[in-house]
Amino acid sequence: MPEIKRLYLTEADVTGMLDMDLALEALDDVFRARSAGEVRNEPRHRLPAGNGSMNFMAATWPERGWAGHKSYVSGDFRVMLYGTNGEGLLAVIGAGRMGQVRTGAASGIATKYMARGDASSVGIIGSGYQAQTQLEAVCAVRDIKNVKVFSRTPEKRERFASTMSERLGVNILAVDSKEAAAEGMDVLVAVTSSVEPVITGDMVESGMHINAAGNNSWMKRELDTGAIVKADLIACDDIDQSKIECGELMRAAEVGHFAWESLVRLDQIVAGLRTARYSDDDVTLFESQGVAFEDLAVCGRLYEMALERGIGTELA
Amino acid sequence: MPEIKRLYLTEADVTGMLDMDLALEALDDVFRARSAGEVRNEPRHRLPAGNGSMNFMAATWPERGWAGHKSYVSGDFRVMLYGTNGEGLLAVIGAGRMGQVRTGAASGIATKYMARGDASSVGIIGSGYQAQTQLEAVCAVRDIKNVKVFSRTPEKRERFASTMSERLGVNILAVDSKEAAAEGMDVLVAVTSSVEPVITGDMVESGMHINAAGNNSWMKRELDTGAIVKADLIACDDIDQSKIECGELMRAAEVGHFAWESLVRLDQIVAGLRTARYSDDDVTLFESQGVAFEDLAVCGRLYEMALERGIGTELA
Repeated sequence: MPEIKRLYLTEADVTGMLDMDLALEALDDVFRARSAGEVRNEPRHRLPAGNGSMNFMAATWPERGWAGHKSYVSGDFRVMLYGTNGEGLLAVIGAGRMGQVRTGAASGIATKYMARGDASSVGIIGSGYQAQTQLEAVCAVRDIKNVKVFSRTPEKRERFASTMSERLGVNILAVDSKEAAAEGMDVLVAVTSSVEPVITGDMVESGMHINAAGNNSWMKRELDTGAIVKADLIACDDIDQSKIECGELMRAAEVGHFAWESLVRLDQIVAGLRTARYSDDDVTLFESQGVAFEDLAVCGRLYEMALERGIGTELA
Repeated sequence: MPEIKRLYLTEADVTGMLDMDLALEALDDVFRARSAGEVRNEPRHRLPAGNGSMNFMAATWPERGWAGHKSYVSGDFRVMLYGTNGEGLLAVIGAGRMGQVRTGAASGIATKYMARGDASSVGIIGSGYQAQTQLEAVCAVRDIKNVKVFSRTPEKRERFASTMSERLGVNILAVDSKEAAAEGMDVLVAVTSSVEPVITGDMVESGMHINAAGNNSWMKRELDTGAIVKADLIACDDIDQSKIECGELMRAAEVGHFAWESLVRLDQIVAGLRTARYSDDDVTLFESQGVAFEDLAVCGRLYEMALERGIGTELA
C-alpha cells in the first residue's frame, strides 16, 4: 500500500477549496451511487450535552473507498474520514462551511431534477447563512432571472438582497411578507428554523418546485399540511431520517394526509429510476434533512483535492 | 472563556500516559455518575465498509463537561472529544491501546464490586492482546496468587504465562484445556472471539465470578445457556447495547432461560444501589460489551493529563 497521508483540514482550508460546483458534482455522484445500493447511511443521532446536544451521523461508500461521520457540538462541526481499504484515518475536516455548501447543493440537485426546465424565478423565505448557499445552488442549475426574499427582519432581508444580488448577478427583491415572496415564483425555498409553518397551502402554485431545507427537528415544520397535500410528488434525501426529523411530514402522516409509502428518495430521481414531474403543472417538493452520505461525498473530494494541492496539516 | 487547546494525541502519546490505575479510577467515576443519571450513551452502530465495517459509538457527560465518540475502521481506533461548555473540539485521540486498557478496567471494576472479597485465583481463557489488560485489571483489585491460562495455541498461552507472570509478579500456569483453566478458580475470564461457547455450565463453580469480555457480536457467544442459568446475578455495562450485541444473553433469552428484566447495570452495583452477591456461594457474571461512556471517561482524563504535561500536537 502506498504511504497514507492523514490530513487535518481547518475551516479556512475547506473554504479555500470548496465551491458550489464541486459540491453539486459530489452530490450528483453520491446520489447515483446510492440508487445503485453502494452507499450506507446512518441517520443523525443526538445526545444531550449541556446547552444543546452532540449530533452525530455516519455513512460508508466502500465502492469509492470512503467511510466517515460528522459530529457537532456548540456549532463546531467536524468530519472524520476513513479509507475502507485498510488505510485507517484519512482526515479530520472542519465541516461548518462544508455543511452549508452541501445543504445548498442538495437543494440544487433536487431543483435540477425536479423543477420545471424553464424555471426562472425563485422565492426564498429565510435570509440566514444557509439561505445564501440555497440560492446559489438553485442559480447554478437553472437560468434564474428574478428572486424575491422574505425574512422577518427588514435589515436582514435587505442585506441579503443586496449582497447576493451582487454575488450571483441576479435581480433580488426584498419583500415584506412570505406570501409576496412566494407569489408567481417557479421555485420556492424555505430555509428557516421556524416552529410554525412558513409555507401554507394557499401559497403553493401550480407547477411550483419547493425546497424545504431549514429545520431538522420533529418539533418544527416549515410547511403546513395544506401545502404538503398540494404536492404531486415529495422527495427526500433519506427516508429513515425523515421519519424521525421531518416535522411536517410526520404531522401530515399522523393526521392521515400523507403516507410514508409515497415518499420518494431523491437518488431514485437523480438516477432516472423515477419521474419527478409528469407535467408543468405538477407541484414537486424536496424535503431536505441533510444526511451523512452527502458529507462523506463532499469531504472525500476535499481530501483528494487537499492532497493534490498540498493543503492542510499532516497528522502523525 | 479561557483559550482552548485542541490536541491531537497519537497512540504513542496515549501509551505514555495511560495506566490501569488511571483507567480504573476513570471508570469508577463514570459508573457512579451514570447511576446518578448524569451520563448519556449511544450503543455501537456498524456500517459495512469494505472488508469489515465502520463502528461508531457516542456518549455525553455534561456534568463533567465532556462529549465524545469513538469510531474505528480497519483496526484504526479514534476518539473525538468535545467540551460541553462551548469549547467545541478538544481532542482527537488514538484509541487502540486506550480501548484495550478500558476494557480491562471495566472487568476490573466488575471484579472489585462483584467477586468474593477473598478471591485469589483467576482462570483466563484467551491469550490475545485483550487478555493482558483483563488479567492486569483483576490483579489490581484483588490479591491474586494463582492464575491459569488456556488458549488453543500452546505457544501463545505459554508466552502469555511467562510474559504476564513477570509483569504482574503472580504465578501463571498455562494449561491445555478450558476446563483446566476454570477448575477451582475464584474468578474466570473469557476474552476470546469464539463463535462457540468457551464457558459451559459444567465449568461454573459455586462462588465464582465470571467476566465475559470477548466478542461483541450477536453472532458469537462465550458462555452457553447452561452457564448463564448458573449465574445468580448478571450485570452488564449497558442494557441497550447488550440487547443488540450480547449473543449469549440474546440466545438464552430467546429460549426462555434468561429474562432481560433481571439484567443489572454495573453502575447500580458500583454506586451501592444494588447488591451483587448475597453469599460466598453466589455465582456472579459480568457481561462486558465495551461502551462509549467508558471511552469518554478515560479520554477526558487523558486530555486533561496531556494539557498538564504538555503532551500531544496542538491543532489549529
